[in-house]
Amino acid sequence: MSSENSLFKDLESASPGDALCSVTALLDAAAFNADGLMPAIAQQHDTGEVLMMAWMNRDALEETLQTQRVCYYSRSRGKLWRKGESSGQQQHLVSAALDCDGDTLLLQVAQTGPACHTGRRSCFYLSLSNEGVTVNSEPLIDPAELYAKSSP
Amino acid sequence: MSSENSLFKDLESASPGDALCSVTALLDAAAFNADGLMPAIAQQHDTGEVLMMAWMNRDALEETLQTQRVCYYSRSRGKLWRKGESSGQQQHLVSAALDCDGDTLLLQVAQTGPACHTGRRSCFYLSLSNEGVTVNSEPLIDPAELYAKSSP
Repeated sequence: MSSENSLFKDLESASPGDALCSVTALLDAAAFNADGLMPAIAQQHDTGEVLMMAWMNRDALEETLQTQRVCYYSRSRGKLWRKGESSGQQQHLVSAALDCDGDTLLLQVAQTGPACHTGRRSCFYLSLSNEGVTVNSEPLIDPAELYAKSSP
Repeated sequence: MSSENSLFKDLESASPGDALCSVTALLDAAAFNADGLMPAIAQQHDTGEVLMMAWMNRDALEETLQTQRVCYYSRSRGKLWRKGESSGQQQHLVSAALDCDGDTLLLQVAQTGPACHTGRRSCFYLSLSNEGVTVNSEPLIDPAELYAKSSP
């Protein structure tokens, strides 16, 4: 554990209501990976459904906190990705939390329609068990229709 | 997208009830990272609470599916880590799902007591907002007591 993470050690004994550090100080100590990224889990705030996991760099997280519209970092495209900019299916931030060792984010969001590029509500649709693989949900929207919206 | 991932492309149009591939075939095509690891999100199966995110290699996932006791890969210790082996706070698997591009797992679990090494139920206890950082929960158990249990 690096010395920066003594901040996370200090926070372990904090209680709700305590005056803590700024978001800037916390993100200075947070454990972005070697590519400057951190996994961010998106959970629908009212139903508890886990919708997806994507990556954020510090810019994406700061933009998300400022605008309340969820912005990730697309590793395949190498740039910021405002969720829904192609599909129209945006995510609005309700709240954000960092975990105990400062290397993962949990976002409570209000998701418009499907979060998954397949048109399903959640990306986690491939169930695994000792009996094999099954699909646990149907698309809400045909993905062809989802991405046609962004074409001219 | 690699050619293996044509399996994930094919699965996009599958429906619940379809006869699909084996878990072995799916994991052969899954996108473990360069270190052979994949993020695994643990969600309490009945309350929907997101408890933690940790990493699994293929051995950890296969053991988890076989034994129904959640086993992660500890990056700091460089070995398999059966959740609760130090703290006594085990996770039992209820169900597991892989996401649409085969690079993240969602585990529905039954967690005994706190999931977090700080004694809190969830690791995601540091809330971030434009107003600053706050702690959103108290420990269920003093962590000194949690880890004393594993001492001789």
